[in-house]
Amino acid sequence: MSILPPIEYADASPDVRAVYDDIMATRRVDSVNNFWKVLANDPATLKRVWESVKTVMAPGALDPLTKELVYVAVSVTNNCEYCIMSHTAAARAKGMTPAMFSELMAVVALANETNRLSNGYRVDVDPRFRDPLPT
Amino acid sequence: MSILPPIEYADASPDVRAVYDDIMATRRVDSVNNFWKVLANDPATLKRVWESVKTVMAPGALDPLTKELVYVAVSVTNNCEYCIMSHTAAARAKGMTPAMFSELMAVVALANETNRLSNGYRVDVDPRFRDPLPT
Amino acid sequence: MSILPPIEYADASPDVRAVYDDIMATRRVDSVNNFWKVLANDPATLKRVWESVKTVMAPGALDPLTKELVYVAVSVTNNCEYCIMSHTAAARAKGMTPAMFSELMAVVALANETNRLSNGYRVDVDPRFRDPLPT
Amino acid sequence: MSILPPIEYADASPDVRAVYDDIMATRRVDSVNNFWKVLANDPATLKRVWESVKTVMAPGALDPLTKELVYVAVSVTNNCEYCIMSHTAAARAKGMTPAMFSELMAVVALANETNRLSNGYRVDVDPRFRDPLPT
Amino acid sequence: MSILPPIEYADASPDVRAVYDDIMATRRVDSVNNFWKVLANDPATLKRVWESVKTVMAPGALDPLTKELVYVAVSVTNNCEYCIMSHTAAARAKGMTPAMFSELMAVVALANETNRLSNGYRVDVDPRFRDPLPT
Amino acid sequence: MSILPPIEYADASPDVRAVYDDIMATRRVDSVNNFWKVLANDPATLKRVWESVKTVMAPGALDPLTKELVYVAVSVTNNCEYCIMSHTAAARAKGMTPAMFSELMAVVALANETNRLSNGYRVDVDPRFRDPLPT
Repeated sequence: MSILPPIEYADASPDVRAVYDDIMATRRVDSVNNFWKVLANDPATLKRVWESVKTVMAPGALDPLTKELVYVAVSVTNNCEYCIMSHTAAARAKGMTPAMFSELMAVVALANETNRLSNGYRVDVDPRFRDPLPT
Repeated sequence: MSILPPIEYADASPDVRAVYDDIMATRRVDSVNNFWKVLANDPATLKRVWESVKTVMAPGALDPLTKELVYVAVSVTNNCEYCIMSHTAAARAKGMTPAMFSELMAVVALANETNRLSNGYRVDVDPRFRDPLPT
Repeated sequence: MSILPPIEYADASPDVRAVYDDIMATRRVDSVNNFWKVLANDPATLKRVWESVKTVMAPGALDPLTKELVYVAVSVTNNCEYCIMSHTAAARAKGMTPAMFSELMAVVALANETNRLSNGYRVDVDPRFRDPLPT
Repeated sequence: MSILPPIEYADASPDVRAVYDDIMATRRVDSVNNFWKVLANDPATLKRVWESVKTVMAPGALDPLTKELVYVAVSVTNNCEYCIMSHTAAARAKGMTPAMFSELMAVVALANETNRLSNGYRVDVDPRFRDPLPT
Repeated sequence: MSILPPIEYADASPDVRAVYDDIMATRRVDSVNNFWKVLANDPATLKRVWESVKTVMAPGALDPLTKELVYVAVSVTNNCEYCIMSHTAAARAKGMTPAMFSELMAVVALANETNRLSNGYRVDVDPRFRDPLPT
Repeated sequence: MSILPPIEYADASPDVRAVYDDIMATRRVDSVNNFWKVLANDPATLKRVWESVKTVMAPGALDPLTKELVYVAVSVTNNCEYCIMSHTAAARAKGMTPAMFSELMAVVALANETNRLSNGYRVDVDPRFRDPLPT
């Protein structure tokens, strides 16, 4: 049971319904996830976060599947069960195979391992890594 | 200054040199990073971690650039400066542009934001996300 | 099922009962939470942590509700379910409305987002932020 | 040195300048922080994040100082140096005294302590904490 | 329900069975834990991670019980329920008493507290702590 | 430069001096670390945290060196530079060799790796791990 209850479409205010409608149209689905239904208790945040998700996860310099894989990687590192489950499903819908999921987990786990080796030994950053990216 | 000093090639034991040689041959470079030089204080861990990195980061179901992007995403979430700097450089060498880096940061940041919204509101996982991946 | 079992008042030693009594008197309630019942397996830690909580959460330069909001913010960032649930209830008892909870979540989530943008881009701290607080 | 360079006003595109102008007007200051100058490498993210910050940190059900204290609490928990320094300065500008800062640190530290006691002992959530907030 | 299903011995490929056999022989048990059964969806990672665990957790400069206590400490800090439960059981099998578990939790919690005090106040590292370990 | 300045013995109030004296007497040293000098801006927290450290880190069911190793493990996982440096020095003073430090890092890193594999795959806890510890 979430701390504030999910708000169903039938009970939603017009501004919440407008966001739900946009989510369903953008994603070509006929319902919205619990995340949005719970966030709807705060309509301004619902709208703002949805617009961020819509913008950030759209195709750009990175393709949508890569973005979902990164989303899962962050969610696993932070141990957000909801986000792992929902973004794993989203990644799968965009083409992630079980083999890709397993490789993703191996990379995420390895990075968590070497992050602690670097931080624990206090390894100095090599000077050549300090060059900024060319723009 | 790292907690244990970096070990230069000239001062390394034969088993450490063998790992350094493999790193340089695999990556087609003529020196190894501080991370490996510091890890060389523990030759068994040096060898084990290098072999994990070589295996996990090799091309597979995911391509090497995607793996580097995921590595950076985890390192940013954990705030490992060394890993952010070294894997950003590695990603750049594999084709990451500044625009891709900026989109990556936007996705990582957004995932960290929605992870806390999901966890904070204690959103229940939608039943349909509970389906295991088809294998 | 917790790793060590909760210890009920009837089964508690005199020193544990003394802490339970102080918790109930301080909070004007007639039972103690599972957190304290489980911590009672280690009476010295029970007493020490309770005295810390009693001292730190008392009115001071910050009011008790603000302190509870901060407690929830930390617990959400770390994803401690027990602490989120118990301190959300405590904050509510001290006057937190659903609108305040939703704003709190929005701030916590935003801070988690910008923390990663700052860390990921390795933004240099502006010199003027380095001034110590005037005392 | 940040991974992408800060963009000064004189070198900024019109859309970046428009955000800088809004930041300076909203905050009644005559320059913008490094965070925004670095984020300006990605004008869409600059604009989106600034609008989120402007909206979320505005007075609402919680006052601006409480929001800054929460921001600092999250940043300390995540160890984001930039965010700790900049939001401590912001909180100070909104009235935080050194005594308030010290109490804030005590609460943040205590919450991090009890988060691990709860998670480590796997304390079961008391049934009464499962009631949703009344709306 | 895990994201990929556990693979039982009867259904496992020869290379997976070889790892399961080695786990059971090394630990003198007659079945393997769910962790390994789920990891078996990715036989290369199963083998690599098992060999890392077997090597790293073996007696060395640190004894096996100390290593298990450290494992639990990390898992509590990260809030990994599976790892807390399985490594608490492993530590118990190697001699951890309830009193040792409680002291461990007290140390872990205290370290999490002082970590945030140090990071929050931005305490400068004392010069004498910067000496590398003598080798 | 810390956010509040370190307070030297010569400038300290009697209650702060009393804590400094107890730290120096307990540890048989002739000065206190920056951590305590900065915490002295908040004398009540200084005294409370010092008493917690003195109590929790004293010999008990776990020996002092094991406790220091656990402290370092937590600090590495959280990336607290100050705590890593100061508790590595403390562990060294209590007998930690470089080989023990390297093994500690290997265990910490491995635990961080398997924590993410367990959380990422959402591995179900084996029923037998759910038995509480016998008391």
